Amino acid sequence: MRVGDLSTPCLLVEADTFATNVATMAAARPGRALRPHVKAFKSTALARELAAAGHDAFCCATPAEVVGMASVGLGADLLLANEVVDRRRLAATVDSTLGSRLTVAVDSPETIAAAVAVGVREVLIDVEVGLPRCGCDPSAAGALATEARAAGLEVRGVMGYEGHLMMETDDKAAQVEASMAGLLAAHADVGGDVVSGGGTGTWDTNTWVTELQAGSYTLMDGDYARLHSPFRPALLVGATVVAVNRTKGWAVADAGLKALATDHGPPTIDGATVWFCSDEHTTFSPADGLALPAVGDRITLRPGHVDPTVALHDRLHVVRDDDVVDIWPVDLRGWDPVVP
Amino acid sequence: MRVGDLSTPCLLVEADTFATNVATMAAARPGRALRPHVKAFKSTALARELAAAGHDAFCCATPAEVVGMASVGLGADLLLANEVVDRRRLAATVDSTLGSRLTVAVDSPETIAAAVAVGVREVLIDVEVGLPRCGCDPSAAGALATEARAAGLEVRGVMGYEGHLMMETDDKAAQVEASMAGLLAAHADVGGDVVSGGGTGTWDTNTWVTELQAGSYTLMDGDYARLHSPFRPALLVGATVVAVNRTKGWAVADAGLKALATDHGPPTIDGATVWFCSDEHTTFSPADGLALPAVGDRITLRPGHVDPTVALHDRLHVVRDDDVVDIWPVDLRGWDPVVP
Repeated sequence: MRVGDLSTPCLLVEADTFATNVATMAAARPGRALRPHVKAFKSTALARELAAAGHDAFCCATPAEVVGMASVGLGADLLLANEVVDRRRLAATVDSTLGSRLTVAVDSPETIAAAVAVGVREVLIDVEVGLPRCGCDPSAAGALATEARAAGLEVRGVMGYEGHLMMETDDKAAQVEASMAGLLAAHADVGGDVVSGGGTGTWDTNTWVTELQAGSYTLMDGDYARLHSPFRPALLVGATVVAVNRTKGWAVADAGLKALATDHGPPTIDGATVWFCSDEHTTFSPADGLALPAVGDRITLRPGHVDPTVALHDRLHVVRDDDVVDIWPVDLRGWDPVVP
Repeated sequence: MRVGDLSTPCLLVEADTFATNVATMAAARPGRALRPHVKAFKSTALARELAAAGHDAFCCATPAEVVGMASVGLGADLLLANEVVDRRRLAATVDSTLGSRLTVAVDSPETIAAAVAVGVREVLIDVEVGLPRCGCDPSAAGALATEARAAGLEVRGVMGYEGHLMMETDDKAAQVEASMAGLLAAHADVGGDVVSGGGTGTWDTNTWVTELQAGSYTLMDGDYARLHSPFRPALLVGATVVAVNRTKGWAVADAGLKALATDHGPPTIDGATVWFCSDEHTTFSPADGLALPAVGDRITLRPGHVDPTVALHDRLHVVRDDDVVDIWPVDLRGWDPVVP
């Protein structure tokens, strides 16, 4: 199949860029030194590519992701790196990972109780390291670990996500070090083998974790690519020009807010200025000196934020030049665990 | 079922607010004076409620919406109010509406050619009325109508969407009148019975169209609600508090960018300040004097923009007080027409 045969809007993954991103990270963080985060791509087919590159332990953000990964045999070591108190869904993750390994993040008595109630066996203590989100205070981690162990849970260690530093450019190494100091202090109190954290934006600066929780590096946010980074954007939204206003100098593509996430800013189009996105459309004009496209022309848009963009689609089309070389279902979307 | 039994994140529709919105619009724009836009809610079950209120002609933004509406018997008079040059998908709309009535928007020789090629019989000439998006120049509408008729198409009239004026508050009536002057001039050249246009934001000021293309009024954007309008927000995102930081004074709910659209700004939470949304979470703090919630508490978030929020979910849960009184599948999502 040719790229031009695909109906639009559709997601395109540049095969060679993706492969380079995966290889670059595998060289820097081989095997279990990386715990790829499937929330970024929500596809077991893409996860298989990472397993082939040597990474067989994964992060998940939802019970649906855990169940989906385990159901296709990618459950060697799954971390639900998120707080979940929905016992029905949490129980589904336990059921799906029988014979595999499941670890769940906990940061409160309530999340410990939920884990115990549904038969989770292993946990990490989630520690807040500067991002205002989940995670206990570093000083509380030891007591939570004691509470978890008293309840019969195995505590494998700690995790902490310095998400507030991903896009930092000034003094990044020092800030990451300061953030991780809190995690290491918590680890000293908690014990265990695992110090999990970090992400694509701190892939080289966070040298304190035993495993890096990066996922976006595979497809790479347009926004992240502003950083000095070896990872290059591999995800495009394919679209068709459906209207052209030659009098006023704009064109309209059939991919809008329902096809790409704009929370990190509007998408970009090579050789063009994006005016705005609406529900089904993006209006743009060519850069100086370039001609307007014609109705029916294919164009590509580069989304600023990969994770929520992928979550809008059913399929990733892997492309090389004009050929579609593979199709990866986005099979980990939504929140209902699908038990096969 | 009780609201508290629903897993989160989930969409909630306040039954009484929805009913009031529908009744208010039906009184102002009865029957075919309203052509509800299904892109706003993507649910044939919700569309049936509007049909019960007297509106049996609908707008669609995608071939998938047309096919879905026709397949459940809601195809009495469907307008594909969008430019489509994908002949495979456009052909699916024709096949699905045999025995029903289908009209397609065209604004260029290419869209006319696509309509002719797949056997579309009726069209509207889409006219640009100030929003930089689809639609021909008003002065070109007559010639396009002639071209369409020469190609064997029935031209029912014109459409034009003054989307740039939806949120206008100053001098709105005059601006809408000026915008519609272009559409009426085009209509004089084109002929036909239909002048279609407008939306929720101009429901009372656009007195020139023969049919109003409003959809958001049913669930009502949090953002639209800033206007002086009788329509009230009826859509909420149900979420669970999964983490609370009592030292630093914030809480975290399990609904983020993958569960609600933020292109019209972040969601709001009654009695709280929203800090930010990330992929799976929203961080917030209580308003002055209010207590932090507990882990496990249910909260609701009001999204700024209904249309792309609904498109993220599989179901709308219709609620009255604490009871789930109905469930409406969001069955018109995605872009692949599903022929039953």
